[in-house]
Amino acid sequence: MGNFAIGLDYGTNSVRSLIVDSQTGEEIASSVWGYAHGENGVVVDERDPNFARQHPQDYVDGFVATITDALRKARDRKGFAAEQVIGIGVDTTGSTPIPVDRAGTPLAFSPERGSHPAALAWLWKDHTAFAEAAEITELAAKIRPQYLAKCGGVYSSEWYWAKLLHCKRTAPEVFAAAFTWIELTDWIPAVLTGTTRPDQVKRGICAAGHKAMYHRDWGGYPEAEFLARLDPELARVRESLPAEVHTIREAAGFLSGEWAEKLGLPRGLPVAVGAFDAHVGGVGSGIEPGTLVKNIGTSSCDLLVSPLAKGMRDIPGLCGIVPESILPGNFGLEAGQSAVGDIFNWYVSFIQPGGKERGSHASLSEQAAKLKAGESGLLALDWENGNRTVLVDQRLTGLILGLSLHSTAAEIYRALIEATAFGSRIIAERFEEYGVSVERIVACGGIPQKNPLFMQICADVMGRPIEISRSTETPALGSAMAGAVVAGARAGGHDTFEAAAARMTGVLPRRYTPERESARVYDRIYRLYRKLHDIFGTREYRDNLFDVMKELLRIRDEARGL
Amino acid sequence: MGNFAIGLDYGTNSVRSLIVDSQTGEEIASSVWGYAHGENGVVVDERDPNFARQHPQDYVDGFVATITDALRKARDRKGFAAEQVIGIGVDTTGSTPIPVDRAGTPLAFSPERGSHPAALAWLWKDHTAFAEAAEITELAAKIRPQYLAKCGGVYSSEWYWAKLLHCKRTAPEVFAAAFTWIELTDWIPAVLTGTTRPDQVKRGICAAGHKAMYHRDWGGYPEAEFLARLDPELARVRESLPAEVHTIREAAGFLSGEWAEKLGLPRGLPVAVGAFDAHVGGVGSGIEPGTLVKNIGTSSCDLLVSPLAKGMRDIPGLCGIVPESILPGNFGLEAGQSAVGDIFNWYVSFIQPGGKERGSHASLSEQAAKLKAGESGLLALDWENGNRTVLVDQRLTGLILGLSLHSTAAEIYRALIEATAFGSRIIAERFEEYGVSVERIVACGGIPQKNPLFMQICADVMGRPIEISRSTETPALGSAMAGAVVAGARAGGHDTFEAAAARMTGVLPRRYTPERESARVYDRIYRLYRKLHDIFGTREYRDNLFDVMKELLRIRDEARGL
Repeated sequence: MGNFAIGLDYGTNSVRSLIVDSQTGEEIASSVWGYAHGENGVVVDERDPNFARQHPQDYVDGFVATITDALRKARDRKGFAAEQVIGIGVDTTGSTPIPVDRAGTPLAFSPERGSHPAALAWLWKDHTAFAEAAEITELAAKIRPQYLAKCGGVYSSEWYWAKLLHCKRTAPEVFAAAFTWIELTDWIPAVLTGTTRPDQVKRGICAAGHKAMYHRDWGGYPEAEFLARLDPELARVRESLPAEVHTIREAAGFLSGEWAEKLGLPRGLPVAVGAFDAHVGGVGSGIEPGTLVKNIGTSSCDLLVSPLAKGMRDIPGLCGIVPESILPGNFGLEAGQSAVGDIFNWYVSFIQPGGKERGSHASLSEQAAKLKAGESGLLALDWENGNRTVLVDQRLTGLILGLSLHSTAAEIYRALIEATAFGSRIIAERFEEYGVSVERIVACGGIPQKNPLFMQICADVMGRPIEISRSTETPALGSAMAGAVVAGARAGGHDTFEAAAARMTGVLPRRYTPERESARVYDRIYRLYRKLHDIFGTREYRDNLFDVMKELLRIRDEARGL
Repeated sequence: MGNFAIGLDYGTNSVRSLIVDSQTGEEIASSVWGYAHGENGVVVDERDPNFARQHPQDYVDGFVATITDALRKARDRKGFAAEQVIGIGVDTTGSTPIPVDRAGTPLAFSPERGSHPAALAWLWKDHTAFAEAAEITELAAKIRPQYLAKCGGVYSSEWYWAKLLHCKRTAPEVFAAAFTWIELTDWIPAVLTGTTRPDQVKRGICAAGHKAMYHRDWGGYPEAEFLARLDPELARVRESLPAEVHTIREAAGFLSGEWAEKLGLPRGLPVAVGAFDAHVGGVGSGIEPGTLVKNIGTSSCDLLVSPLAKGMRDIPGLCGIVPESILPGNFGLEAGQSAVGDIFNWYVSFIQPGGKERGSHASLSEQAAKLKAGESGLLALDWENGNRTVLVDQRLTGLILGLSLHSTAAEIYRALIEATAFGSRIIAERFEEYGVSVERIVACGGIPQKNPLFMQICADVMGRPIEISRSTETPALGSAMAGAVVAGARAGGHDTFEAAAARMTGVLPRRYTPERESARVYDRIYRLYRKLHDIFGTREYRDNLFDVMKELLRIRDEARGL
């Protein structure tokens, strides 16, 4: 008879609850619920490709539906009873800030504001704030360069302050109605533990450090003087934020009586502080110093940790380096690609190549797998959703080059896969250029177990073996580990993440090793990728093409009246 | 009761016979026959995208089938009798050289050689000779720069000597068996008039001047010394070539009794000297000084003429400037794009975007027509089949830039159309930069009457009105005009092409004029196109990307074992 932890994992399109045996890592029940609002769970705006929001009601409905359903499934298993659940952990997308009132209730729930699109949760991939992000970058470069150094040199339109500033500029009435903005990842534990009042919410280091420029060096969140230069109202929001933030080894609180009853769980269960899905996925993949965890799904998140004791210098172009944001006791380093699976999905569902019969992922993969490296003559840049690392620029776009009248749908599919692998390699090289060694690569997320072609190309392009995390749900598993750690060994959990990892994580027997000939060819193509990357993405070259993509986007936005 | 001329037009996939009233231009009967060999009439090699050949038997079968059928259809018309046919003109693709024996019989007809792919006709778009073309360019640059000046500075893999040299290198036994090589456009009139013996064949200035470096300045075909430096056997072929070449106002000979009987035509009909389809299409569109004729089909050919009396300086990047190659009495200037309709066809038939229902040309056009200029944020280079003008480089490839996760199949379709329009504009600007004014644009060929979206985008991008030739078969019409001119006014034809044009050509009432707002947006995008064009296609920029496409093609060819 074991003890069980629940991991609650909020993705882009759905939420999952996973019940895990804290001593064996066995995943005994799982339940997924797709958000009800919008297209595939994302509220979009047809005229504005930058727009991506979600309705907070889906977040609440989502944990009710999935925890209840997972418990129901687990009850069918011998040896499980809801009383044996010892803790809950939570991970979510981010930066996904939600405007809330003084009670911590989302404005989207209010009759007056609820219908306004700015009152929704601003999903991580909402890029409407690109101009504000540039403005924040510019101001910080001028008066607070240290802020930028910790987030890769560029503040992103995906992040907290840019989104708030864009709301202030474009929907001031909504902004005025918001007492503060709470990251989804902090809001869920607060809801579960009945602590949504803003002064009670335990905010996590992960969201604060990676997205909201929180750092001890300057006393936490950005200084009021800095924020006021952007807009005095941002300084007002700052006052609602706490001085201290927390790691996932701390409890945000304890499951409220009301929710315990509704969900059929023991009262007073510890609920861990929330963190981002990809980061917690690193924990669920057994991250430790030297292990690069690549969480590959619609986008990718590349994680490394390095002991606090060793210190850490700034790495340009890295989304963030934040103490204890991934694994307590270590610096958390986050890099990533703004789109991976999303690119293949775009190709299959928007372009719909290959006619009706040959245009599925399975069919295109099968055809693409027959091609040799370099055989198509194609080369692509994987920037259909911008570039998160190392260029940190949302205003970049995808490119395909080498097209001939004989290029096939499957060749393009493979070129898109290769492009994401080249993007991966740039990231790994950037870590190593700055002294953070990569001794081992473990992949997790939606793609690695499903797409052997992708994994083989990654290994070939990166020139290194890649292992695959055993769990297909590493973020949920990582959250369950956090639930087990906040419960502690005495309650049947663990006292450290090391102990939890030893019991609860592992890799599959099958690993991908580079094929020599492909790796040799990809080395050559990678040099070309690198040149395109630099000439379109930076001003490093004298005759760069940096303005080409920008100008096209300006023309596009004008044509669309944005 | 009128007098009639026959135009015989050999395209890439099929041959057409057109019977035209020489006094009204009325096209009274037409017949098309698709070549029997290969895919869509082209013999291809799956492993080598550069390979494109045809079987000469198709050329003979083609005129028999179509002349017979057109005469049969015409007989149904009141007032027509085969006895009233006064002349025949011929146009074909080119450079499409055919290796022949001492009798002028194609090697493909011989039992020993017939099955060898090198014994076929080397279709214009065969690019297997790219290395030899580069070699010819290099040698000419060194010892005969004047040769290059007349053909745009670069000798193309599509052209006569490059193809012969490639045959010598890769199929020496076929090359040794060939007494000479005759352009398709010279061979058809020779067949019809029973003059295929190489010393009897009247070779046209069009093929000789544009593709085989024939020019009076150096006494005709390239000097033996030059050819011998490439390969002594080329000098041997030169000996089989005549000193003088001819314009389409001259008769190649007279219809042989055998063919007259077989086809049901009067004996002794004059058959005009052959020329290339696109050039003769200029004639059928009423070309005159100041009128740019754009023949737009699978590829494009842009034609201008300028009076011999005005003289002409060399224009870099122009495929050729040849006295009397288009219209007797004028310099003929030929530019063009290696692919136009072929690019849209590639997209629809190779990529098959939009699923089963939304992926047709009609459906993609309908969706694309709803987009505004610039709205997609996409920009493409139209180099899927290389660039014929002004870069003259087959080793360039297509590019699409600006892709986002919201880019649609129809947006890409429109971007491909726009790319070909930008390519058109570069050509028109090049003419004007060198003092050849463009006062009027007349479009003809397969696309203009079928594709209003394409035409409107062309007008918007070029910022000028575009008229459409009345005939949908301007090459066949131009050939019929040549048939009428070699017959002469006394026989019921015309003594000059001016007279023939006045009676036989015209434009449609509908013309396309630029929409101001679109033209303004396209001006901005054109600047970006121009930058990509220069940075990928030339070494003009210090940090050019000239090697990127080349290196990808090298890698591709190595991967394919070519």
